[in-house]
Amino acid sequence: MNDVDIESLKGIANQLRIHSIRATTAAGSGHPTSCCSAADVVSALFFGHMRYDPKNPHYHNNDRFILSKAHAAPLLYAAWAETGLFPVEDLLKLRQLGSDLEGHPTPRLPFVDVATGSLGQGLSVGVGMALCARLDNLDYRTYVLLGDGECAEGAVWEAASLAATYNLSNLIAVVDVNRLGQSQPTALGHDLEAYQKRFEGFGWRTEVIDGHDLDEILEVLAAVGLGHQPLVILAKTLKGGGVSFLQDKEGWHGKTLSKEEEAQAIAELQPSAKSGIGHPIPAPNQLPAPKSGAPSSYPPITYKPGDMVATREAFGSALLRLGGADSRLVAMDGDTKNSTFSEKFAKRFPERFTECFIAEQCMVGVAMGFSTRGKVPFASTVACFLTRAYDQIRVAGISTANLKLVGTHVGVSIGEDGPSQMGLEDIAMMRAVVGSTVLYASDAVCTEKLMEQIASNKGICYLRTSRPKTPVLYSNDEVFPIGGAKVLRQSAEDKVTVVAAGVTLYEALKAADALKSEGVGITVIDAYSIKPLAKDIIKAAAKKTKNLVLTVEDHYTEGGLGDAVAGELSAEGIKVHKLAVHELPRSGKAAELLAKYHIDATAIINKVKALG
Amino acid sequence: MNDVDIESLKGIANQLRIHSIRATTAAGSGHPTSCCSAADVVSALFFGHMRYDPKNPHYHNNDRFILSKAHAAPLLYAAWAETGLFPVEDLLKLRQLGSDLEGHPTPRLPFVDVATGSLGQGLSVGVGMALCARLDNLDYRTYVLLGDGECAEGAVWEAASLAATYNLSNLIAVVDVNRLGQSQPTALGHDLEAYQKRFEGFGWRTEVIDGHDLDEILEVLAAVGLGHQPLVILAKTLKGGGVSFLQDKEGWHGKTLSKEEEAQAIAELQPSAKSGIGHPIPAPNQLPAPKSGAPSSYPPITYKPGDMVATREAFGSALLRLGGADSRLVAMDGDTKNSTFSEKFAKRFPERFTECFIAEQCMVGVAMGFSTRGKVPFASTVACFLTRAYDQIRVAGISTANLKLVGTHVGVSIGEDGPSQMGLEDIAMMRAVVGSTVLYASDAVCTEKLMEQIASNKGICYLRTSRPKTPVLYSNDEVFPIGGAKVLRQSAEDKVTVVAAGVTLYEALKAADALKSEGVGITVIDAYSIKPLAKDIIKAAAKKTKNLVLTVEDHYTEGGLGDAVAGELSAEGIKVHKLAVHELPRSGKAAELLAKYHIDATAIINKVKALG
Repeated sequence: MNDVDIESLKGIANQLRIHSIRATTAAGSGHPTSCCSAADVVSALFFGHMRYDPKNPHYHNNDRFILSKAHAAPLLYAAWAETGLFPVEDLLKLRQLGSDLEGHPTPRLPFVDVATGSLGQGLSVGVGMALCARLDNLDYRTYVLLGDGECAEGAVWEAASLAATYNLSNLIAVVDVNRLGQSQPTALGHDLEAYQKRFEGFGWRTEVIDGHDLDEILEVLAAVGLGHQPLVILAKTLKGGGVSFLQDKEGWHGKTLSKEEEAQAIAELQPSAKSGIGHPIPAPNQLPAPKSGAPSSYPPITYKPGDMVATREAFGSALLRLGGADSRLVAMDGDTKNSTFSEKFAKRFPERFTECFIAEQCMVGVAMGFSTRGKVPFASTVACFLTRAYDQIRVAGISTANLKLVGTHVGVSIGEDGPSQMGLEDIAMMRAVVGSTVLYASDAVCTEKLMEQIASNKGICYLRTSRPKTPVLYSNDEVFPIGGAKVLRQSAEDKVTVVAAGVTLYEALKAADALKSEGVGITVIDAYSIKPLAKDIIKAAAKKTKNLVLTVEDHYTEGGLGDAVAGELSAEGIKVHKLAVHELPRSGKAAELLAKYHIDATAIINKVKALG
Repeated sequence: MNDVDIESLKGIANQLRIHSIRATTAAGSGHPTSCCSAADVVSALFFGHMRYDPKNPHYHNNDRFILSKAHAAPLLYAAWAETGLFPVEDLLKLRQLGSDLEGHPTPRLPFVDVATGSLGQGLSVGVGMALCARLDNLDYRTYVLLGDGECAEGAVWEAASLAATYNLSNLIAVVDVNRLGQSQPTALGHDLEAYQKRFEGFGWRTEVIDGHDLDEILEVLAAVGLGHQPLVILAKTLKGGGVSFLQDKEGWHGKTLSKEEEAQAIAELQPSAKSGIGHPIPAPNQLPAPKSGAPSSYPPITYKPGDMVATREAFGSALLRLGGADSRLVAMDGDTKNSTFSEKFAKRFPERFTECFIAEQCMVGVAMGFSTRGKVPFASTVACFLTRAYDQIRVAGISTANLKLVGTHVGVSIGEDGPSQMGLEDIAMMRAVVGSTVLYASDAVCTEKLMEQIASNKGICYLRTSRPKTPVLYSNDEVFPIGGAKVLRQSAEDKVTVVAAGVTLYEALKAADALKSEGVGITVIDAYSIKPLAKDIIKAAAKKTKNLVLTVEDHYTEGGLGDAVAGELSAEGIKVHKLAVHELPRSGKAAELLAKYHIDATAIINKVKALG
């Protein structure tokens, strides 16, 4: 970098400030001062340092950039406009319904890999990307721009710990330490040394700089990638930096400038502003792209009806089986791999497995990172602990990510470990994720067949599996389309259609046998696909049982299978009765608990008899 | 402490090991080796250091103890049995359905303040307790025992940061660094210095000790409370410590001993084991208890019908109003207090307000801590960010906690900030929390009246509030019982019962007016209480509209108001149609978005016309 270049970068930084101010004033909302503090860093990264093809943001070996402090979205948009990717005039459409330049970035934009906007999530996604670069033998680097306020989020430190554990020197975090949060100064203010101690304590190489001094910025960027540690650049900045009447002032968070203030700010910035258009951008690295695309087939499965196999174990077997056929598959776990059986994959394909330790938010973030790079990530843990990452999963929905989540040990059927270990709200939680698919396998064959589709179809998908061993119900050539259901028992005079999945399906079958001996028939449906639900199959069966449906589930009453069926079918005149866990459960044996919480065969029998 | 005492404590530690091993072997499941590593620390704390009344675990100035590494539950149970609180024979009922000695501790037990078992949550609860001690001028101390594995959880570092920010020298963490996780060694193994650097970086005083050396343990405990920083004792231990064939060995996590192994272990431990019964326990401190109990009344409210007031602002006003009447009220926020309006309370009652910065998990943990000490904590943030703390909220349900959560800025009606800032799954999430109450206020009067009940009734409660200003609908003397609903429009020939809440209620009222002018009548119900739902009121109205119900909500289709109504009423033959957000929304103006996602008056009108 010569002096001329530094002057250009300074000018571009001011140009980005002008764009950010103009766009937010035009929109009447947004965070111009949060853009201004980071403008010099972004100018340096985009126009003086990162290697990427501005005409092809998706190019596989471009350096990646994640705006974790997502409220600075106008700055990101301005940078890409100034590379020439789209007209700068479009920036004034910020936050309008017709524009993809939304309030916070989403992957509707080609240069955004993941939605950000829930603070503290970006670094874990960066960890996933950096791990993926290593897996793919690519030398792109991943840059994550964080705010200082968001460093209060524990998710940042989960990611920091993992990045150091795996020596991710291809990961660079920049913290824009502008001292001011939304409602008051941050806990650490401008104590840069405090940030430094924290990151050093977590095993990172640290550099403290003046975030408005382009010489300093470029100097530390020149040393990126050295050593074995991830690097954090702690940039001391001023919120509203570069504009005299904004900078370092409280009360300006999320506040736009009036037209007069805008004019005043631009009058200050314009004289030294410089367009980035045509400014040389370092060429991207040229290395071969990794394989993409699902295989045409998977090895067959060979279960025998009646074999006792837990669905969690079948998940592990499927992951191993599919992993052999599809090099895009990667997996991660949160120190439960010997319970979820993801260790089958981990042992066979250690290079494609990431142990995330007990840090579920980070695990989902890492999976997201892999997903953005074309991998098919399966993140597994005990189902209840996925609640720890619900915000990350929510945002994965906004990212329309190709994310596969597997929860094991659902419901009271886990037994003695007690309520804190029982996934009893996971269906409710996962159904409410936009664009999600929610599957609940009852036997090993179903698990394996669903896994094939999960792996080969894009999108966010949750597979619910159980702890107890259950007999194989289906033959190896059975097919389980997503959105389908299996009618397992049905006869002409059936009284009720019982809809179940997982362990309660076996209870329903037991109930059917017992009732049959008493001359009462029930239809039994395996609702392995909860979202999308096999509405037509259930409806057709219900019509034959006088519209009477009984759902049975090892899940709380709210938001689960019963609500899904009622929510989709009540408009059709179907009457849905529910058996589900409706109180705080205790420790005990699985069978005792199914009985105590009225979701076992006896409860089904009693309910069927009570109905009409 | 003299030498005799130390020998006793060593003996008690072994007694605790014996109990833990026996209980888990009897149960056939559990984590004996995780108990053994911490046995010396627990012996020192319970029998040589903490000040508490073992006959009255609830005594207000007892030192508090949180077992964050909750899988060591048998050790905790053994310690309390050895104080004499209950017979040691009961320990053998561990994990049985009839026993409160569950797999992981819950407050069914008098000596357990909060459920633990989802790792990494205990420290933030401890922060709340320590803050509460300060507020109440009590000198009890709060001890939190963590595992090393759980230090990978970001929630630990959120709490660590806040504890240092608020100089909580009355908070003591002990990390049982036994090196081994569930499925493999932890990332940091026995690198005690690494833990030390992390906690020092986060502003803590640190002590590294041999966690099996009672002299060292007691020496550092003697210096507890010095200085202004929280203290962490980093105890190097061996998993299975004290038993030759278990200690420091992989493959023993969550594994019980066979009868033969049990005998072998006891043969090693018994010779030096000593009962804790009758061992002197330091007396608790004697200081007056804080006030408890709700006030008999609150100051009146004085809204005028038609006043434009956002429900989030009414929440802030209510918090201030109730806070003046009830000294038990405390509040906390995650650096959004100027958006949630909790700052009204914060400014007037700063000593009862805790700024938790951008760390929602910690915020909920802190609230839980206050809740265990008899306070009524209101934790508020932008609704979507409560997803970040879903696991904590889930466990609060298991704790049957008196926790009040307020989410602001729900749904697409927030407008331009875009999907990452829109709470669209909060109803689904909160309904699925066991024992929860879910309320959704439409106007300021309703908000204020609901707040009175939330404050005075025990339990976990979520209040959903909106960003836009909406007109006051109700008179100041209207009552809003939890579990109720308001029928706002109803006439003889109504075609459909429209059930709405929040911003969509106003859309329903607009639709009713428009339809009326066309000669079509609809019943409009304000379902301000979503859980419990006013089933009878909705059913009675529906019966008059040929069982036809239309729900309208600013929430995703799954798990919200519509599913609640369908889930509760479809069994009664009520046909529930739903209008809700069923795709990923964009940035835009609130009104544009209500229209685009078909939850505005026009959508209601069209749907009513389409129905029959």
